[in-house]
Amino acid sequence: MPEISQRAELMPASPIRKLVPLAEAARARGTKIYQLNIGQPDLPTPQVGLDALKNIDRKILEYSPSDGYRSLREKLAEYYAQYQINLTPEDIIVTAGGSEAVLFAFMSCLNPGDEIIVPEPAYANYMAFAISAGAIIRPVVSTIEQGFALPDVAEFEKLINERTRGILICNPNNPTGYLYTRREMNSIRDLVLKYDLFLFSDEVYREFIYTGSPYISACHLEGIEQHVVLIDSVSKRYSECGIRIGALISKNRKVRDAVMKFCQARLSPPLLGQIVAEASIDAPRSYGAEVYEEYIERRKCLIDGLNRIPGVYSPIPMGAFYTVARLPVDDCDAFCAWCLSDFEYEGETVMLAPASGFYTDPGLGRNEVRIAYILCKEDLKRALVVLAKALEAYNRRTDNKQPVSQSSKAGKPDE
Amino acid sequence: MPEISQRAELMPASPIRKLVPLAEAARARGTKIYQLNIGQPDLPTPQVGLDALKNIDRKILEYSPSDGYRSLREKLAEYYAQYQINLTPEDIIVTAGGSEAVLFAFMSCLNPGDEIIVPEPAYANYMAFAISAGAIIRPVVSTIEQGFALPDVAEFEKLINERTRGILICNPNNPTGYLYTRREMNSIRDLVLKYDLFLFSDEVYREFIYTGSPYISACHLEGIEQHVVLIDSVSKRYSECGIRIGALISKNRKVRDAVMKFCQARLSPPLLGQIVAEASIDAPRSYGAEVYEEYIERRKCLIDGLNRIPGVYSPIPMGAFYTVARLPVDDCDAFCAWCLSDFEYEGETVMLAPASGFYTDPGLGRNEVRIAYILCKEDLKRALVVLAKALEAYNRRTDNKQPVSQSSKAGKPDE
Repeated sequence: MPEISQRAELMPASPIRKLVPLAEAARARGTKIYQLNIGQPDLPTPQVGLDALKNIDRKILEYSPSDGYRSLREKLAEYYAQYQINLTPEDIIVTAGGSEAVLFAFMSCLNPGDEIIVPEPAYANYMAFAISAGAIIRPVVSTIEQGFALPDVAEFEKLINERTRGILICNPNNPTGYLYTRREMNSIRDLVLKYDLFLFSDEVYREFIYTGSPYISACHLEGIEQHVVLIDSVSKRYSECGIRIGALISKNRKVRDAVMKFCQARLSPPLLGQIVAEASIDAPRSYGAEVYEEYIERRKCLIDGLNRIPGVYSPIPMGAFYTVARLPVDDCDAFCAWCLSDFEYEGETVMLAPASGFYTDPGLGRNEVRIAYILCKEDLKRALVVLAKALEAYNRRTDNKQPVSQSSKAGKPDE
Repeated sequence: MPEISQRAELMPASPIRKLVPLAEAARARGTKIYQLNIGQPDLPTPQVGLDALKNIDRKILEYSPSDGYRSLREKLAEYYAQYQINLTPEDIIVTAGGSEAVLFAFMSCLNPGDEIIVPEPAYANYMAFAISAGAIIRPVVSTIEQGFALPDVAEFEKLINERTRGILICNPNNPTGYLYTRREMNSIRDLVLKYDLFLFSDEVYREFIYTGSPYISACHLEGIEQHVVLIDSVSKRYSECGIRIGALISKNRKVRDAVMKFCQARLSPPLLGQIVAEASIDAPRSYGAEVYEEYIERRKCLIDGLNRIPGVYSPIPMGAFYTVARLPVDDCDAFCAWCLSDFEYEGETVMLAPASGFYTDPGLGRNEVRIAYILCKEDLKRALVVLAKALEAYNRRTDNKQPVSQSSKAGKPDE
């Protein structure tokens, strides 16, 4: 029987989705699960987006242009202008979600064996797309003690060699919620220029910034316009993850021409999603404001609650709708699985994403989890109660077997 | 400035879409274009599919499972049973069009440098997906003189070496309309078994078979169940190319597990497309019958008309809705471009796909074009008139410059 490819062997299982079979079994037993593992908001899609579907007056659901409808690209250009990102429709290529934008960016810019530097913890699927392109992710590790700030430039330079072709950032960051400062973005710009690198910048969470700090897009950085490949998606900002509409944006004509070859090969991005996305951009201001207020409150609820559980620590995320929290357990992979397979409190349990999957080094993030605050406050509060009970029960159980060796590291940092 | 990848340099421009800028310019001059270059049917999407959109009663357009909704996979399994293809929903993975199914099949099964054998002319994007996976397409060439029948087994065996990992077929065939016989399919099965190969089989045109000959699916071949990866799409059968819903099907658990890693990385296939596809499977029998009758008539109209133009020859396609025809010109790339840039007859012209893009060897197919019969008969008839006038005018023009050197080859074959 023919064997599968080495690339498929290398591909990581999704840390966000790999516990799904255990969750299904728990649900089959009647256990209610608070799903904090996945970035699927529970907030409604804008009504104008839903209405656009009802109003489709087509007899044929035909191919769209490979780079997406021009009307959508024009709307997107107007949208970016609000953020002082100046684009023409030609700079924008519509993709099947931000996912396809990352894949096509890597396919177009990276040769097998090429390296990109990525601050970690990082969105796990970057690794999958890098493997798809035969490229190698070299991590610079940010730490919970430093609130996941960008590691020092010296850490990047240690890794730079003749195979280094780019830097990838996610800003505001998934999974940490960190927002890069002007100073940090400038230091990235300097690196990109000094070593002639691509800057892949995933900025799908720009709507969700909760501090007074400014949002500095890679597209705001002067002098590296030809180096920047912006990754975007409407999934999170309009709570329409299922329509699979994202964008790859670049001022670099050669990059766009290369990406277009991959786009033409897959013919076109989803037609129906483009119709919904285009309409959603016209959602009233009140839609965005309500969503924003809701996340502000959820963030406070979650972070306060987490830090009140003995031995748990979470920094305060500045953006997106995730946090990486440290738990007083040795191995969050085992703990997260156990929550689904062996635990319930009054018929309920929690589903978390073990943070180990967000690091390249299998030894890192063992006592961390990513938590998405995509449930209503009432559910979040209840989930926190269940999580506290789970930690108690888990450690009572492990105390009988072996001590939690990392317990000293698991306390709150001094800062 | 950083350079794009070698893979992107290698990627071919789509032979179907590369003339688009010339067509846009012609349209801007007010020329009407009969578009025979692309497989976008003009027939309506089933009403039940369109109605399903209107009836969506969701507040959130959320992610779907990475392998697609189970309800869709169950419906698909019922659909395949009508063709004596026995599948469970677990054998079926929903993809973003047949395109993504091909890409993920290659990514999962082929290592860089691995080779697959493909009868040519072949759908041009197979090459693009092979390049994406770093794999190499080794062509066995079928000829218009033989009606594009499968080349002899000896031709395959000449190419088989230690890097050969699979055979890819498209049946009924795009671009030739050829339908593989039982004998041909058995010879492919024997090769697959003898050399332990994958068989990638793209069967998206199974609805469109116009002869009494049976449709032999790769899934009907006994003894190679673990070798077969079936590629499918609802695009053509329900005239809904824009919804981007296809499927990758395999009885090989290892292959499916590998493919699922790529599926999880891109999160999910399009939600809205799945809803339309699932409803479309319930289209009344009359829908399929009407579409079928229409293509039967168009086929007759096109092929008769082509063979009546002096120097033009087209075999009679047995399936799909394309034919590869030979034209009395030296270089169809130049001719097809010229039709858009320099020709019009009573304000009209034709857009054809030069067949050279369907062959790996740049010397092959120079005097062939692919023509899709996806326009109504009236338009097809008119397009044939315009094509005849274009050939006349083009050859008058080239006669003044240089003789058509291939003119003896461009006549009708003896058969």
